Amino acid sequence: MQTLETTHPKLLELKTRLAEIHDIQAAASLLYWDQATYMPPGGAAARGRQLATLRQIAHEKFTDGEIGDLLNALEPYVADLPADSDDASLVRVTRRNYQRSINVPAAFMAKFSHCRSQCYQAWARARPANDFSLVRSHLERMLDFSREWANFFPGYDHIADPWIELADYGMKAVDIRTIFAELRQQLVPIVQAIAAQPPADDTCLRQHYPEADQIAFTHTLLSQLGYDLQRGRQDKTLHPFMTNFSIDDVRITTRIYEQELGQGLFSTIHEMGHALYEQGIAPELEGTPLAGGTSSGVHESQSRLWENLVGRSRSFWHYFYPQLQAAFPDQLNHVSLDTFYRAINKVARSLIRTDADEVTYNLHVMIRFDLELALLEGTLAVRDLPEAWNDRYTQDLGLTPSSDSEGVLQDVHWYTARIGGMFQSYTIGNLMGAQFFAAAIAAHPEIPQQIAQGQFHTLHDWLQTKIYRHGSKYTPAEILEQVTGQPLTTAPLMHHIRQKYGELYDLS
Amino acid sequence: MQTLETTHPKLLELKTRLAEIHDIQAAASLLYWDQATYMPPGGAAARGRQLATLRQIAHEKFTDGEIGDLLNALEPYVADLPADSDDASLVRVTRRNYQRSINVPAAFMAKFSHCRSQCYQAWARARPANDFSLVRSHLERMLDFSREWANFFPGYDHIADPWIELADYGMKAVDIRTIFAELRQQLVPIVQAIAAQPPADDTCLRQHYPEADQIAFTHTLLSQLGYDLQRGRQDKTLHPFMTNFSIDDVRITTRIYEQELGQGLFSTIHEMGHALYEQGIAPELEGTPLAGGTSSGVHESQSRLWENLVGRSRSFWHYFYPQLQAAFPDQLNHVSLDTFYRAINKVARSLIRTDADEVTYNLHVMIRFDLELALLEGTLAVRDLPEAWNDRYTQDLGLTPSSDSEGVLQDVHWYTARIGGMFQSYTIGNLMGAQFFAAAIAAHPEIPQQIAQGQFHTLHDWLQTKIYRHGSKYTPAEILEQVTGQPLTTAPLMHHIRQKYGELYDLS
Repeated sequence: MQTLETTHPKLLELKTRLAEIHDIQAAASLLYWDQATYMPPGGAAARGRQLATLRQIAHEKFTDGEIGDLLNALEPYVADLPADSDDASLVRVTRRNYQRSINVPAAFMAKFSHCRSQCYQAWARARPANDFSLVRSHLERMLDFSREWANFFPGYDHIADPWIELADYGMKAVDIRTIFAELRQQLVPIVQAIAAQPPADDTCLRQHYPEADQIAFTHTLLSQLGYDLQRGRQDKTLHPFMTNFSIDDVRITTRIYEQELGQGLFSTIHEMGHALYEQGIAPELEGTPLAGGTSSGVHESQSRLWENLVGRSRSFWHYFYPQLQAAFPDQLNHVSLDTFYRAINKVARSLIRTDADEVTYNLHVMIRFDLELALLEGTLAVRDLPEAWNDRYTQDLGLTPSSDSEGVLQDVHWYTARIGGMFQSYTIGNLMGAQFFAAAIAAHPEIPQQIAQGQFHTLHDWLQTKIYRHGSKYTPAEILEQVTGQPLTTAPLMHHIRQKYGELYDLS
Repeated sequence: MQTLETTHPKLLELKTRLAEIHDIQAAASLLYWDQATYMPPGGAAARGRQLATLRQIAHEKFTDGEIGDLLNALEPYVADLPADSDDASLVRVTRRNYQRSINVPAAFMAKFSHCRSQCYQAWARARPANDFSLVRSHLERMLDFSREWANFFPGYDHIADPWIELADYGMKAVDIRTIFAELRQQLVPIVQAIAAQPPADDTCLRQHYPEADQIAFTHTLLSQLGYDLQRGRQDKTLHPFMTNFSIDDVRITTRIYEQELGQGLFSTIHEMGHALYEQGIAPELEGTPLAGGTSSGVHESQSRLWENLVGRSRSFWHYFYPQLQAAFPDQLNHVSLDTFYRAINKVARSLIRTDADEVTYNLHVMIRFDLELALLEGTLAVRDLPEAWNDRYTQDLGLTPSSDSEGVLQDVHWYTARIGGMFQSYTIGNLMGAQFFAAAIAAHPEIPQQIAQGQFHTLHDWLQTKIYRHGSKYTPAEILEQVTGQPLTTAPLMHHIRQKYGELYDLS
């Protein structure tokens, strides 16, 4: 009642406009979801046009000068409110997004968009052909556009900062470089120590696991972990993702490999971590720019927390392994929990990021982050990128790619989106995930024991209260400080790695 | 090349605007499809808002005065073109739709829309409660709105005409009344003659047919009949429908009953008939108002042609029955083709339209059509509707509904859309379907024999060339005249019924 009485008329108008834009964006997300799950091949050409049309309309409506006028008119009103009130947060976050949208001319974005699709198509040919030269000139144009875009935001410390801010608001290249260097210094010797030991045996994962049985198992897993299937669903896709059309319709997609069990299991838990965040946002933020996770890094912290800190823990499988054995008796009845646990936590140096384990994963990310910065700075030329890539792999992971496909062509990111701010969120997410999980356990030391009993409500409620419900009200740094009392730090992640892998390997 | 050179710049502008609107409508259709197939329950509230937003944007963009100006500016250009050229057709059909859209004030449509959703909700309570009085006052308002809407189109002969035109352009109440009366006169004695005989035995259809096996069978059926699954797909739903997002993405939905085989089989073939029409539209019409079937009646003629004239024929099952037996050996190996054929063509008087067979179906439709006209004319009051309904059922079908649920509350149409023009298309479709099929066989007498060999290309190609590819270029009357050389007539349908059912029953 009070809300209705006190709502500023300009705020109502702003919310009405934002809700309309939100609806259009939700429709675009559904078009994308359908494209990645059920769309027949014939639908592709029209779908591209439909997506472009909806995005264009949403962009036009959001960059309408009326939005700017409404934001200006509301400044005196929100100045009197607490900064973390819904209304003040709405105006602040909307202004941030608005400014970002109007800074870049529509004509530039149209050209950039064309360049992106050309480059993506060239990459799609270059990767199977294993030939970087087929995409080099396109990537050079991507770099030019990426630099030009950044220059619409003058006053940056580092040219990558505007791109980094887009994904992880408030973070800057210099700070990330510092913390990544610290992390790398600690990780490299651990990886070396493990590499010197006999590899863990993961053959139990590499058996035939029929798709339908895997889907059925992950489905029961999802409900037990707290994912609300009345407000979500799980479908098959090629490249798993989470998407949402409202707080009450948050879907995940999963990739199943019949010859390898880990892919389906852990990509499901990973995407579910993203989905729990979106399902947990306070209903009163629905239809506004606050109704979404606050940054890529914080989002990744939630997926990684559930995937790695919960889903790859011994206590988790203490509870679930009997269920898994019951689902796959032929494959697993003769495999002990300990063997299975070692298999899902096998550490191995590899050339491919998406195959990497919890320990080596961040090394892959940091290589990409450093190369992005060097490209944007102009200290590395696109033509020298494959060599620089291979050198860093040799140095950090002790392996040298024998071809571009298992080197610089492996990830689509640079070839379809931009160069800049594309990778840091993965490692920021791992760091934050460990910080949040440590804080949760400090507040509720019973959590690990509950996990071992298949109980997740304490952890889930804590994350809901501390993180999920706020949506985008707080910046990543604010939420981290509020919840953990600390800025971004490597200590909890390294503590987790040393403890867990110290038990599995000799790290002395 | 020529098209590009001669394209009028105003035409290009019109097409660009129409393509944008088409994209938004396609997105709305996908939102609807998802709602009816995969959406989790939680998604419902936001989905309603999203659909309303997209439809509102499409409406605003279509009723923009610029569209009217472009149409005016193009009149001299198209005056010199053949009436059935793509460009002249585009301008003509767009103007027709445009005029219809701008005639009705947006404020009226908003109120009407509110009335519709109230009435639908009341119906959803009234039907299970079996109590017409719960929805009566809502239906009275629906009638008021339906009459008021028609009056935005002054100059009609009958107040139902504007609504009828919306579904079946060019048709009027007076003509439909005449032809329906003629049809009824011929059907009633046939139905009476059949009712006097022992009922056909359809117990073979009423066995347990597992859902997955039914889906697998209908899937193979679809490909063999010519439905392009690279440009379409089939999913489960509650109330089967066809929808499309482009000419190359035309989907059908199917309802399966595990205890009754006919539902899944024939609803699949029915929706496929709709889909073949949309898949067969000429690619150059894509993205324009011409890229869709020309009327509800013509659309229904295609679904009914495939469902009844092809799919319930003896030659069809001569070919497919062995496949069906192979799919369901336990259920059908002991059932002869003749028994099966008689079962799927069992004629029985019933109270429920959607359960009706090929012979009695049109009687159900005509009752509704006549009652609609009487309501709109004011010669029947809503409060007297249940009684009028029951009287007509007694008279035409010899059965009296024992409750409103199996009487006036059975169909959602009036309670969710409007009173007027909601039912005639079903029977027009049956009539036209028989006319088209007779013309196809006259042109290609080998068609029945081909069907008996599982060959459908001659029929499919003929329908494609004569009907599908034109989209909405011709009116229903034009296409009927062009293809069959006749106006709408009862002769081919009655010939088909007399011949087919004369063989199954004693009709002397």
